[in-house]
Amino acid sequence: MTDQTNRRLRLGMVGGGNGAFIGYVHRLASRLDGDFELVAGALSSTPENARQSGRDLGLSEDRIYESFAEMAVKEAARPDGIDAVAIVTPNHVHYPAAKAFLEAGIHVICDKPLTATLEDARALAAVKPKNGARFLLTHNYTGYPLMRQAREMIASGRLGKIRVVQAEYAQDWLTEEVHNKQADWRTDPKRSGAGGAIGDIGTHAYNLLRFVTGLKTEAVSADLTSFVPGRLLDDNVHILLRFEGGAKGMLWASQVAVGNENGLRLRIYGDKGGLEWAQENPNEMWFTEFGKPRQRLTRGGSISGDVAPTMQVRIPGGHPEGYLEAFATLYHQFAEVIRGRGAAYEAVLPTLADGVEGIEFIMAAVHSSRSDGRWTRLDQQ
Amino acid sequence: MTDQTNRRLRLGMVGGGNGAFIGYVHRLASRLDGDFELVAGALSSTPENARQSGRDLGLSEDRIYESFAEMAVKEAARPDGIDAVAIVTPNHVHYPAAKAFLEAGIHVICDKPLTATLEDARALAAVKPKNGARFLLTHNYTGYPLMRQAREMIASGRLGKIRVVQAEYAQDWLTEEVHNKQADWRTDPKRSGAGGAIGDIGTHAYNLLRFVTGLKTEAVSADLTSFVPGRLLDDNVHILLRFEGGAKGMLWASQVAVGNENGLRLRIYGDKGGLEWAQENPNEMWFTEFGKPRQRLTRGGSISGDVAPTMQVRIPGGHPEGYLEAFATLYHQFAEVIRGRGAAYEAVLPTLADGVEGIEFIMAAVHSSRSDGRWTRLDQQ
Amino acid sequence: MTDQTNRRLRLGMVGGGNGAFIGYVHRLASRLDGDFELVAGALSSTPENARQSGRDLGLSEDRIYESFAEMAVKEAARPDGIDAVAIVTPNHVHYPAAKAFLEAGIHVICDKPLTATLEDARALAAVKPKNGARFLLTHNYTGYPLMRQAREMIASGRLGKIRVVQAEYAQDWLTEEVHNKQADWRTDPKRSGAGGAIGDIGTHAYNLLRFVTGLKTEAVSADLTSFVPGRLLDDNVHILLRFEGGAKGMLWASQVAVGNENGLRLRIYGDKGGLEWAQENPNEMWFTEFGKPRQRLTRGGSISGDVAPTMQVRIPGGHPEGYLEAFATLYHQFAEVIRGRGAAYEAVLPTLADGVEGIEFIMAAVHSSRSDGRWTRLDQQ
Amino acid sequence: MTDQTNRRLRLGMVGGGNGAFIGYVHRLASRLDGDFELVAGALSSTPENARQSGRDLGLSEDRIYESFAEMAVKEAARPDGIDAVAIVTPNHVHYPAAKAFLEAGIHVICDKPLTATLEDARALAAVKPKNGARFLLTHNYTGYPLMRQAREMIASGRLGKIRVVQAEYAQDWLTEEVHNKQADWRTDPKRSGAGGAIGDIGTHAYNLLRFVTGLKTEAVSADLTSFVPGRLLDDNVHILLRFEGGAKGMLWASQVAVGNENGLRLRIYGDKGGLEWAQENPNEMWFTEFGKPRQRLTRGGSISGDVAPTMQVRIPGGHPEGYLEAFATLYHQFAEVIRGRGAAYEAVLPTLADGVEGIEFIMAAVHSSRSDGRWTRLDQQ
Repeated sequence: MTDQTNRRLRLGMVGGGNGAFIGYVHRLASRLDGDFELVAGALSSTPENARQSGRDLGLSEDRIYESFAEMAVKEAARPDGIDAVAIVTPNHVHYPAAKAFLEAGIHVICDKPLTATLEDARALAAVKPKNGARFLLTHNYTGYPLMRQAREMIASGRLGKIRVVQAEYAQDWLTEEVHNKQADWRTDPKRSGAGGAIGDIGTHAYNLLRFVTGLKTEAVSADLTSFVPGRLLDDNVHILLRFEGGAKGMLWASQVAVGNENGLRLRIYGDKGGLEWAQENPNEMWFTEFGKPRQRLTRGGSISGDVAPTMQVRIPGGHPEGYLEAFATLYHQFAEVIRGRGAAYEAVLPTLADGVEGIEFIMAAVHSSRSDGRWTRLDQQ
Repeated sequence: MTDQTNRRLRLGMVGGGNGAFIGYVHRLASRLDGDFELVAGALSSTPENARQSGRDLGLSEDRIYESFAEMAVKEAARPDGIDAVAIVTPNHVHYPAAKAFLEAGIHVICDKPLTATLEDARALAAVKPKNGARFLLTHNYTGYPLMRQAREMIASGRLGKIRVVQAEYAQDWLTEEVHNKQADWRTDPKRSGAGGAIGDIGTHAYNLLRFVTGLKTEAVSADLTSFVPGRLLDDNVHILLRFEGGAKGMLWASQVAVGNENGLRLRIYGDKGGLEWAQENPNEMWFTEFGKPRQRLTRGGSISGDVAPTMQVRIPGGHPEGYLEAFATLYHQFAEVIRGRGAAYEAVLPTLADGVEGIEFIMAAVHSSRSDGRWTRLDQQ
Repeated sequence: MTDQTNRRLRLGMVGGGNGAFIGYVHRLASRLDGDFELVAGALSSTPENARQSGRDLGLSEDRIYESFAEMAVKEAARPDGIDAVAIVTPNHVHYPAAKAFLEAGIHVICDKPLTATLEDARALAAVKPKNGARFLLTHNYTGYPLMRQAREMIASGRLGKIRVVQAEYAQDWLTEEVHNKQADWRTDPKRSGAGGAIGDIGTHAYNLLRFVTGLKTEAVSADLTSFVPGRLLDDNVHILLRFEGGAKGMLWASQVAVGNENGLRLRIYGDKGGLEWAQENPNEMWFTEFGKPRQRLTRGGSISGDVAPTMQVRIPGGHPEGYLEAFATLYHQFAEVIRGRGAAYEAVLPTLADGVEGIEFIMAAVHSSRSDGRWTRLDQQ
Repeated sequence: MTDQTNRRLRLGMVGGGNGAFIGYVHRLASRLDGDFELVAGALSSTPENARQSGRDLGLSEDRIYESFAEMAVKEAARPDGIDAVAIVTPNHVHYPAAKAFLEAGIHVICDKPLTATLEDARALAAVKPKNGARFLLTHNYTGYPLMRQAREMIASGRLGKIRVVQAEYAQDWLTEEVHNKQADWRTDPKRSGAGGAIGDIGTHAYNLLRFVTGLKTEAVSADLTSFVPGRLLDDNVHILLRFEGGAKGMLWASQVAVGNENGLRLRIYGDKGGLEWAQENPNEMWFTEFGKPRQRLTRGGSISGDVAPTMQVRIPGGHPEGYLEAFATLYHQFAEVIRGRGAAYEAVLPTLADGVEGIEFIMAAVHSSRSDGRWTRLDQQ
């Protein structure tokens, strides 16, 4: 149980105005465990929408801002200024906004991918935060309890030496040409960066497999495709991976796989055991010790062996928790970090370095694909 | 999206102190959509626990009460008194607490089953609420989006005339003798009433099948069993049902079904179609039109036909919502009713009358079981 | 592997002519393991159809018979006469046919239910077979490898003392009024007996739960319904069961459950463990030891503990075996019994006594239903 | 129903002696529909085993051969000689054996992959069969009813233009070093050829995706790995595919994926629809028309649209058919071809050309992997 109270942290938001999707998700996630209260916002790049959205969310007039820059300055100056800001804009705004708040000494919660370009990513990594301001990248799928458990099991050797990693993320919402607020910026290189599906969902799959396995990537070989005529960015991603130590992987991300809603799936095989998990039914995970029956491990229910200490379970097994709860776990545990008692969570919350690696992954895949699948290192982007 | 703001409603809580389960769930649910703020509580029947729990939840000292009676009186007298109270105590306290708040003009959100006895239930139904105070019974499973959709589909004739209803609710946590805060009162007739598993989970299954099908119950034939030696109340429930108009049903509830966590499942068959749904993976429902392939309907995804207008979907298909979201939907829609703009929800939110019927169902089953399965009417209890 | 050869046994068939379903299944099952060769038949009660069907199956003209009586006499007299006969007619012919062959010293393989009436069943049980002729009742679902495994696990105490048994068998092919060769006799009391769905599929579910659990039935309370207007026999069956020693059960059989093809399912819970199995995907079974993760046991794959010695597995795990293989297992193991080396199988092959109990079950349910659900013993029919 | 008779065809077998797996499977498959009778065999390369195996199978002494060459000659000379021979040896024997029988005018049923080397494959393709002897390659998974249906649906445009194909075949039986009759030759380049997992199971997945989609392969990029120390051939296969017309694919085959028994799975996405199927539960297939609910199509049950005319269904939906039935379908339909009435099946039965392409696929993958994943054409091997 996570609502034993504390002062609620004051939260601001950049982006996420009326009509936005992920901003709403951040607000839900910030509220669930009672750690944050939204008190300020620069909710849209359009002044009228920024103001109207702020009013609709019940913000005080003096804390509705028309630019994040103004908000960073003014909130930093208030005695009751925001503790943290959630940045939920299209990708190309992440860098300047995050920079502004970190340099103002305000903790930053930033949506993924980190930035639209590798230059921005590296520049952001070089920013000196004021007063030890912290950074959280919302690779929310790492908040799923069973992903924490999987990481723990692999780290403690339950699967033996990892050999094969199969990651996939299949959707179908871009099967046809589509125009709306969500689709438009995601298919626009200026706002998304060089990656389409690979940036929007491929980075999630990549981050999750790295998070869970702890394997270090050596190189990727990619074949990116835009199936829908006129689309400028990839909508299907086929990638082979090689990891240090010899493990191999495959990553498939698609937004044209008809019949798939949000099919993020991870399968990992070592020389002693295997794990399989699918996000659409996240409360169960399949674990097999070689030669023994497959076991169904459940969030909040029976686990074979030690339970991961960072796993956040709110309600008993069989009472499904979902996407919002996993997202909220990142918010709650980051709040604990801010409060100075989140040491246990530092190792599991996605960092700026994870974000930089995500952009390197995107760029390596884009470059590999452009050079007919040449094996490409992430650190040579 | 449900966080376009309004004044937050002020919420009090009776029960739900440290160590309690369902009170914590109510708090999570009340927070998710931003409709309520917990400001007062009589959180335990033990004064010290009441006070400590209130402090842990960050309540003001003057709004931590040692009895619900005091709280009802004092909050009703405050200009900033609570708008609503959540009653999350063991069953036998529901009646006096609900009565006190309704008569103080404070809206009541009450956990199920309604009361420990049929006398209490009927007395509660006879209470005259002051100032039109409203009552919500948290049969939370009715908040699941696909249960709203199922109700809509049946009401609009998609299944034809209903013939067969198979409801079940299987758990295993009482397989052995167990003593803890949760188990103790649920297996104690003084606090639970005459029903064990039938009251704790059987009423959920019963309420849900009634909610979804709209069928009126004619009579039940029951065989209740206590398998664990020394247990005073039933831990396994076998019931046959007859409905007006000729439909038949079966209801199985068990707390000794090893391997089941929270296996609430509903299957409904009419002369034109069938529906099947299981709570542990609540984001999908199976619909078959006779002679055609089975279809997978998903929350937030593809639905065959009209979407139920009362279905609350926060995030897109494939991003699983779970138990807490369904629970929160009851809180949100009740908030809308309180605000005077929830007319559309009145038909779907569980009422005091539903609660009385739930107790009649328990008593009819208990009496049928005691008379060797005699078919027993609910309205002759 | 089961084709290490032996002389093939010579098989005759009564019923199963052109247009029949189950006769064809018996022929497939008899061929799979190479134990039988079909050489004679009285394949239809209509002489022309009998003759044409025999020719279509490649029988010698002199072994195509127009009546089972003639066939029993003549085959018994031939030096190369049939070793065994498969009786695959509507129910009311089972008794006279089985009697004729047993008394002629020919082994009988008989479809279920045993007979159309309890009188016939008991009369058949009183027949004195000549030369030790044996009898096999094709309750084919008992041939599934994992049902053999379940029986073994329960017998060896892996589930502890059994408490609850949930059996169901849901189909939808009689949802509407239908007329064809299959449907006509199954809905005709003269040919089927007093039970409709209960005889056709309910007996399968009942036999299987008895086979697997070994529990002895004490009494049943039934509610049988004919939903389709004009139908003379039940098409939906709701039964409560009480077993000696205190276990309880539910059995649901329906032929109007839209969306279900052949949904035979068995769930069994003891005080130490639980087992769940569904016929439509028969190669897996779910086993839970209380407090541990659910395990997926697979036919031919990993089993937790000892493997049942009577389990017949032809191909490795992951290569699915199905209905025909389970059926064929009964044929193969009966062939081994005939050859005098099937001692291990005697305990698992369905017997005449099982058939009599099946008819008692039908009659007890019919009588209970007619007396408003009165608990009714099987042995007082 | 497929047992309306005809003269049984006389079958010989090369390989498949005591201890062999796939020979036993061929015998089961050849018997099921009553089309073949095994009458001759050169069952082992070891004379004693050949003779003992022949006796165990009940063959006449004069039709038990110690070499396939002798068998081809002598059977061709007999008036009651075999109509067809099943070649079920390790891969390197396929070519000489198939050549001998084709040139003797005896129909050949040959296990896959076609040969151990591309030279052999092409030489076999150049053989002139005597008297029009036919050739069947037992890519048995193409016999599954729903794979026939998938092929039909794609050919008739139900999925639109195909974009993405995800094929996989995961097993775990070679997770550790293992020595037995099955494992030894499969991991020995002399008997298997240059491919390990890619030849044993990768070719199945490749053949199946080609069969179902009809897409022509342009090139492959492969990363083959031997994870188990000392193993000479690949045990994990990662392949990217490009098809003519722009479709893309991934193929994963592994024999070290702990927890997987025989996980052959195919997913296909076009611009109008998607199909998903998994071999371990082969009686269902998932079909989605873009924007509509996912449908569950079942073998023998409800299909959305036309049913494939070559789909062989023996028993009704819900009565599972499995691996042996699919295998038997190839035998039955090949028997019909031999009898001169199988025109409808010619297009669906796997041919020698399919076999040659399979070896080209293996070699292209091996060469691509050796050249660091260079995109490699099949027709330039």
